[in-house]
Formats: sequence, structure tokens, C-alpha cells
Amino acid sequence: MADNLELIPVPGIRLGTAAAGIQKPGRQDLLLVEIAPGSNCAAVYTRNAFCAAPVLLAREHQSQAVPHYLLVNSGCANAGTGAQGLADAQACCQAVAEITQCQAIQVLPFSTGVIGERLPVGKIVKSLPCAHQNLSAADWSAAAQTIMTTDTRAKGVSRQFVSNGVTITVTGIAKGSGMIRPDMATMLAYIATDMSVAPAVLQTCLQRAVAVSFNCITVDGDTSTNDACILMATGQSSHAQVESLDGEAGLSLQQALNEVCIELAQAIIRDGEGATKFITIDVRGGATEQECRQVGYTVAQSPLVKTAFFASDPNWGRILAAVGRAEVDGLDIGQVQIFLDEVCIVAAGERAPDYTEAAGARVMQRDQITVLIELGRGTSQAQVWSCDLSYDYVRINAEYRT
Amino acid sequence: MADNLELIPVPGIRLGTAAAGIQKPGRQDLLLVEIAPGSNCAAVYTRNAFCAAPVLLAREHQSQAVPHYLLVNSGCANAGTGAQGLADAQACCQAVAEITQCQAIQVLPFSTGVIGERLPVGKIVKSLPCAHQNLSAADWSAAAQTIMTTDTRAKGVSRQFVSNGVTITVTGIAKGSGMIRPDMATMLAYIATDMSVAPAVLQTCLQRAVAVSFNCITVDGDTSTNDACILMATGQSSHAQVESLDGEAGLSLQQALNEVCIELAQAIIRDGEGATKFITIDVRGGATEQECRQVGYTVAQSPLVKTAFFASDPNWGRILAAVGRAEVDGLDIGQVQIFLDEVCIVAAGERAPDYTEAAGARVMQRDQITVLIELGRGTSQAQVWSCDLSYDYVRINAEYRT
Repeated sequence: MADNLELIPVPGIRLGTAAAGIQKPGRQDLLLVEIAPGSNCAAVYTRNAFCAAPVLLAREHQSQAVPHYLLVNSGCANAGTGAQGLADAQACCQAVAEITQCQAIQVLPFSTGVIGERLPVGKIVKSLPCAHQNLSAADWSAAAQTIMTTDTRAKGVSRQFVSNGVTITVTGIAKGSGMIRPDMATMLAYIATDMSVAPAVLQTCLQRAVAVSFNCITVDGDTSTNDACILMATGQSSHAQVESLDGEAGLSLQQALNEVCIELAQAIIRDGEGATKFITIDVRGGATEQECRQVGYTVAQSPLVKTAFFASDPNWGRILAAVGRAEVDGLDIGQVQIFLDEVCIVAAGERAPDYTEAAGARVMQRDQITVLIELGRGTSQAQVWSCDLSYDYVRINAEYRT
Repeated sequence: MADNLELIPVPGIRLGTAAAGIQKPGRQDLLLVEIAPGSNCAAVYTRNAFCAAPVLLAREHQSQAVPHYLLVNSGCANAGTGAQGLADAQACCQAVAEITQCQAIQVLPFSTGVIGERLPVGKIVKSLPCAHQNLSAADWSAAAQTIMTTDTRAKGVSRQFVSNGVTITVTGIAKGSGMIRPDMATMLAYIATDMSVAPAVLQTCLQRAVAVSFNCITVDGDTSTNDACILMATGQSSHAQVESLDGEAGLSLQQALNEVCIELAQAIIRDGEGATKFITIDVRGGATEQECRQVGYTVAQSPLVKTAFFASDPNWGRILAAVGRAEVDGLDIGQVQIFLDEVCIVAAGERAPDYTEAAGARVMQRDQITVLIELGRGTSQAQVWSCDLSYDYVRINAEYRT
């Protein structure tokens, strides 16, 4: 994914950026998204109890009106800031409302960056006219760069499909690299389509896509205070409104949205802080999907498993130990099989008879590896995408505020 | 804690070590512990589903007879080794039985080291006579060194107390540095007293001590396959048998054992892989002890919190985010207070009004720091002891098998 992303504009969406001086001077760090009247908008937010002021306000505004603008800043999360943080976020929404002649409740605010510092409202308000003047349908790539914090690469994806003879576009951008273990939401992601979709259908469609994408990833197990994922449907295509996800048009939309979300979620993992390897934990044969996810996350978040991947060391005992502590009730280890890509490392709960260290080492050299864990107790399954734990993860997070 | 530990012998316990060549040549890696007839023995073991062959066998042997010998090797965990691993552990117990003229079921085997490799039975059997000849009441310090793997310091503690005019000794050793998140047990710990204690009382006494010591620590959240903690009561003092933990003698024993276990558990954290700081997470005001432990472990195991401690960066937003994702039902963040030692960083759920970055930075320079989290919803509390996450943790675990 190159930094200059080739993203397909979505009729009804315009984006404008500005350098407000919240991050380093001159760096674009303020994004204004304009959503054309007649659009619908769905959202999922973090479930962290300490969710940030902008999350609280966005949720409230969305319950009162259909959003007309999104305002996103990087460099400051406006989290842990209490009543002052809410007032600051509110002031920014009010400033957008004044410039654009809409109501403040039609503006959803989003922030990402350092937790616990006050939002620089003055800088944001001063830069808003610039972002507003810059509004353009073509600026998705600039928008993806504007919302980055420790990300090293901008993340964006477009998909098109034809439904009833009409070409439909789905384009999305996301940011995220550390503090990544989304829980019913992701870091920041903004996705739009020119299809017309009924509000309840749009919300369901987004939740289904998030469940198979952003909710399947972890860098470090740390769920953010500011996660949010927004799906906008502008209805500017000539296609009839989608009233159900069961028909051809709904199925096509869900499919395209899933693909966009999965590619964005995987891009977050590939750009995970310090990551050198992309790891898929594929858990099958569970009694429930929940226990498969539990096993997947326990393996994916084990610091010992992660450092072994970083070292390209086929230390499969660490994977086995992580499966063993995942609190699967009554796990019969005699039924457990584990594979590193095509190599069987554990069969019947112990080292596979024909496993060789050389075969394990060969797989561990790769930069994309799938760990397949067969629990042998049912038909459920789940996938988790993760990365390794390197010196650079420690460096990035030790130096984050310096 | 110096490498040459000053440990008080316990009448009725003799220890012998040998260099079996399981770890580096010449390194003492085999320990034989002789427990005098008439002793009682309590134990707690790992709850990891993939628990090692020696754990399975020790548990079985202990259910059939009072142990007369413990056999411990470092360098190989004999875990993930299936039926062969059980046969190997059994062969070692049999060899001890032949040399010492006891039954194999009177021998408890323990192993620690790399998971998934076969136990070198030949080397162990060949070195057993040497360890047996070396048996001495004074060799606790050598024993503590013999069971080390990635530990950089031997860990041992002695306490004495007087009960009914009789001086009683409690001496214990432990090993552990990585893969540390004990769950109803610890890494390896062997503790002895010369008191006479009824078996059921001894088991309760051990479980209570473990609950307030080894079960309160985490280095990396990874529960081992081989954890075991053994308490031996030789009854060689002239004190009458302890039949209850409610009397003066029982209370004194529990107190001394708790102190020994807490000091050993904290020594494991101080020697945590790559650790540069000792962190206490003290959670108070919870509705239940369980939710306090949940919050404590979530904060203690957060890679972002751990790297901030490593960097001496008062990035308290990460602590707040970890508390927020600890899944405390209906947490009212307005009641939450957080302190770094004497400095209040969060009050009423947000940055404390008089908090300054300079005050936070002053605390973060220390090598022992207490994070006090007041949940404001009840009277329960719990403590977790942990350490930071440094470059060296990654290095040690990336290079572990090379």
C-alpha cells in the first residue's frame, strides 16, 4: 500500500485537510469531511469505559440528527479530559456549524493522539476555514495521511461492484498502529458508499463488517479510548435504496464492505508498531466461536509467542502453552493439532512424530505465517490477525511522547 | 539478594546437586531433595491444560504416597512430550527409587526449561549417584542456583519464629523470570519447615500463602506448563503437631510462610526478564476482589503501560485506558482516582487539577513504583506485582534457544 493511495471518490463526500499545528508544524492534522444531504450514516464506537470526549459527543449528536460533517484531528485524543474535554469538543463542533451554516449536532467530532492532554481548540478553530476551503471529492488519500499518528503508512481501500446495472463505489480509510485491540469498533475508520441504504440496514451492514475485520485484530491487546468506525451512504448513485441485506444489492454491498474493512484491518496489523511479520491465528474445531476467539487472542497476545515470531524461532512450545492457558473448559489436549503454515507441529497434543526443527525454521523465516489450531471439539471457528513483538515496538512506545 | 544466599537449613531436609549436562556443560542442573520419613508434603500445580509430564506424574505419585524424594532438573521442561514424556519422567523416578531404596511413587519429578524437547533420561540417570552422594542439609543455596534457567539471580528466603518456646524455621527457594503469570501455583518453588503439620492443614496453609504471593505476580501474562510449589513439613522440631491454622502456632506458621512466599514471588518479579522497575498495582474500592485483580492484571500486563514505565514516561493516559478496558461492569469513571506513589494523577475520572508533568516524571524515575487505583464502588482490594517491558525482554526471548 503506497503512501499515495489510489482511492476512488464517492459522490456526495468531500474532504478537506489543514495543518493546525497540533502535531509537528506544517503536518496536515485536521480533516473535515462533508456528507451530502440525503445521506445516512452508521457508526460503532469503543467500549472502553474511559471513552474520550469526542466519542461521547459523537454518539450523542448522532442520536439527535443525521451528520452533515465529520471533524477529525490527530495529535491529541481529548481523552481523560472530563467536562473540559466535552466543552472543547463541543466548541469545535460549534465552529464547524458556524462556518458551514449547519447545526452543531450535525457535526461528529473525532480525535486521536496522546491521552490526557487538553484539545487545542484555538488552533483547530483557526484552521477550520482552510480545511473548509480545501473541500474536494478527490482528497481521500490526503485525508488518510492526515489522521495518522504512529502509523508509518496511510491506509485506504476502494472497491467497486455492479448492482442492477449500476456501478457502486465503496471507499474507506483508517488509521491505527498501536493500542490496537478493537472491541466492537476499531481505531478511526471512515468508509463511504454512493449507494442509498436505509439507516437500520446500514448499521447492521457496518456491524457485520466490523465483526469480521476490525474486531479480529490485535497488536498489543490495548483497547483504545477513541476507537470509532463510520460508514456513510450518500445515495448519490442511481441505484434504488437498499432496504435489506438479503437481496442481491444488499449482499453485494455487504461483500464489498467486508472486503474493504478486512483490507483496512489487515493494513493496520501490517503497520503494527514495530511489526516485522503478519500472523494469522486460525482456530477451528471449537465448541463455540467465543472459545475459538479466546484461544486466538491468547496466542496472538502472548509476548513469548510474539518474540519467537520476531526471532524466526520455531519455539512451538510457547504456542502450546498459550493454548493451554486460554481457559477452554475441559479441553482434551489429545485432540489438539497445531500447524505452522503447511507444517504440522503438534498432533494428538504432543510434538508431531514427523516434525523437524528444519521444517519449522523454514516457515518461521516467512513474513506472513498462519498458525492453524484445531481444537477437535466442535465445528466453530475464528480468525485473529496479529503481528510480532520487536525491539521497535518497545522503542516506539518508550519514545512516544519524547 | 546475593547469589550466595544465607539460608537456614531445615532439619529433615537434605539437598544434593549435580551437573548432568542438560544445560551448558559443567553447569549444576540436577537437584535431589531428600525428605525425612515422618514428614508431610503439600503442593499446588499449574492449571495450564498442557501441563507437563512431570506435573502429571508428581500429582499422581503424591496421591498415592508421602513423598520421600524430589527430583528437579533445569534445561528441559518435558512438556508437550505426550506418553514418551511420561515414560521418561517415570524412568527418572524409578532410577531414584533404585539408588535410594524407596518406591518410585515416593519420588516427585519436576522439570523446567525448553518446552517440547525430550527429557535426556540417560544424562539424568547417570548423574543421580553424584547428586545422591552430595546430599547435605546445608546446600539450599546451591539448590537455588541449580534450578535457574533465564533467572539472573538465585532466589531463597529463610524466616524463623518461636512458638511455645521452640524456634521454628521456614526456608524456601524458587526459580522464575519469564513465562510468569502463575495460576493457582508458581514457577518452581520448594519450601520446608521443621514444624510438624497435619497434611490437610499443611495444604490449606500453602494455598493461602500462594494466594497472597505467587498468584499476585505477572511478568508477561504467560502461565507456564510446569508451575509447581511444594511445602514440606518434616516435624523434626520438638514442637507439637499443628492441627489447625487458628491457634497461635498455626497463625505464626502461616505468617512466616506468607512472608517467605511473598519475598520469593517479589524476587521473581525483580528478576523478571529484562525488568528495570518493580511495579506494584494496588487496586482498592472494588465491588469484589475478583474485579480488583482483573483491573490489576489488565494494567500490569498492558504492553503500553509497561513500555511507559521502562521509558520513565508519566504517560498516565495508558493506565487510564487499561482500567477502562478491564471489563468492570458499570464502572462509574467519575469515582475513579489513580495515584503514582504520592502523586494523584487522576481524580473524579479525569486528570487531577493540581497534577503536573514534573511531579509525574519525578515518580517515574524511581525503580520501585506503586500505582494505586481507587475504583470507588466497594471495599474489596487486590495487589499485583509486575515489572516493565524493556528491549532486554525482547532480546532474551528472541535469543532464548540460540
